[in-house]
Amino acid sequence: MKPIPFEFQLHEWLKANCPPIAGGIGVGDDAAVVPWSSPHVVMTTDLLCDGVHFLSASQPWEQIGRKALGVSLSDIAAMGARPVAATVQVNLPRSADGPSAQRLMQGVLDLAAKFNVSVVGGDTNRGGDALVIGTTVIGTLWGEPWRIDSANPGDRILVSGSLGGSLRGKHLSFMPRCDMARDLARWAPPSAATDISDSLTVDLANVCEASRCGALLDATRIPVAQDAIVRSRETGRSPLQHALEDGEDFELLIWMPADQWALAQNHPELCDLIEIGTATDQPGIRIRQPDGVIRDLDIAGYEH
Amino acid sequence: MKPIPFEFQLHEWLKANCPPIAGGIGVGDDAAVVPWSSPHVVMTTDLLCDGVHFLSASQPWEQIGRKALGVSLSDIAAMGARPVAATVQVNLPRSADGPSAQRLMQGVLDLAAKFNVSVVGGDTNRGGDALVIGTTVIGTLWGEPWRIDSANPGDRILVSGSLGGSLRGKHLSFMPRCDMARDLARWAPPSAATDISDSLTVDLANVCEASRCGALLDATRIPVAQDAIVRSRETGRSPLQHALEDGEDFELLIWMPADQWALAQNHPELCDLIEIGTATDQPGIRIRQPDGVIRDLDIAGYEH
Repeated sequence: MKPIPFEFQLHEWLKANCPPIAGGIGVGDDAAVVPWSSPHVVMTTDLLCDGVHFLSASQPWEQIGRKALGVSLSDIAAMGARPVAATVQVNLPRSADGPSAQRLMQGVLDLAAKFNVSVVGGDTNRGGDALVIGTTVIGTLWGEPWRIDSANPGDRILVSGSLGGSLRGKHLSFMPRCDMARDLARWAPPSAATDISDSLTVDLANVCEASRCGALLDATRIPVAQDAIVRSRETGRSPLQHALEDGEDFELLIWMPADQWALAQNHPELCDLIEIGTATDQPGIRIRQPDGVIRDLDIAGYEH
Repeated sequence: MKPIPFEFQLHEWLKANCPPIAGGIGVGDDAAVVPWSSPHVVMTTDLLCDGVHFLSASQPWEQIGRKALGVSLSDIAAMGARPVAATVQVNLPRSADGPSAQRLMQGVLDLAAKFNVSVVGGDTNRGGDALVIGTTVIGTLWGEPWRIDSANPGDRILVSGSLGGSLRGKHLSFMPRCDMARDLARWAPPSAATDISDSLTVDLANVCEASRCGALLDATRIPVAQDAIVRSRETGRSPLQHALEDGEDFELLIWMPADQWALAQNHPELCDLIEIGTATDQPGIRIRQPDGVIRDLDIAGYEH
């Protein structure tokens, strides 16, 4: 068993120590829902650090800026919301120059423009040895919020795209699934949702635990990215393992009642959704292997 | 003349490159106003870095967390708004331990509780050599937003407390002027406002420039903090210079029509406000010295 990461402990501590929000959703879901007279404010925040989420020495700074906003937009999408406005915080290492800093911000602004998100504020400092970039995004719900604690046994489990090997590039270039969230809200609202940031198994387990149910995945249905296959040749792990255990694909992971899913498949806007399994009464995550044998799945996640 | 700091250039670049927000306020004021169906969302963000805004090796981490939220609450107050919800981002240096991280967050939560602000989300990572903590706060306006570009010649210039020497402790322990903002909104709404983070002269100049007016200060009226006097003995600069040029006092700096100010003085809730000068048609900042001579003032600010 891996040691529990320190950041996870702090997150648990925050969940336990932040007073709950009457009529809203606080720490613990993809984004918070802050009660507002009309409409409620969905709010999420992310902080990315050099050497952990990107490599500022080798990766274009536009892409780093783009990723920073993208991860927050993905959280907003996973809540069933539309992003409206964003703030950006940048801590530049003492070695940074002005043009690099502008490219970083240009990456933020370009992705913001794509989703009609207003960048309304920022704060920039210089200090330390590492580039750190944070984003906070607020948005409005398309309908009811998509919680992580409301999956039901029998729900079909769906994913919005192929998985694994994102370190080869998708972790920087992914497109947050904001349009898919809008179409889902319109045609087939999920019973629960999250986005895949840590890994399919970790994010799946997180929803299963919050919803007090389990999951049975079908190995033959899990969409394995081409990059997972390439990675597999480098690592010796199977492409499926990469799809299950790699992080930062930023695809939506959706729970939906079976009858709703049957209807959803008639909508061309939702044709990217792939059914990968079913929510179960029995806790834990299991997988039906290609040979038909069902085994328990280890919960393994992205090591940044 | 001091070189223009790099961060300032980036801020100017952001102001020039972020599309304006129809019906709202974007980059450039103390906080943004994001149009919302009801009521509008005031949003501000700050990022504090070790060695710049605090010294994590010698200062208690509760106070660092408290300061991080406090600077954002001060911005919300300076906009004429009430804080509602906050998110916190922490980048821990690799050397940090769990108890320190919890104390940092406890400092945030304690100040949040004081102002009935919900901490609704957070993100924590580890990497780099420097503690970095960011906060984003959303709030609602008490009335009209207090802009930086709406001061008028003839307005009285007011400050909510004594200034200078905050490095001796107030920069960590200050109380954001949220209650004063509420009382001002009720009894005597300002024509313009900001908070003193960089220095009295820098933040004053910022409002003067945005409002296309100048200011005449009265040296005998500027409230000099006891800490400015103590600092003066250490630095050889005058206490007044410290009051004019030190940063991080996080007091409100208010512009108010003279007749409104006359009425405001009847309200005991506003008795902390001190008149320090008058807005002028003539651009630039001048000061009437104790000997009656008026001289131009250098714009000098806090060197973090």
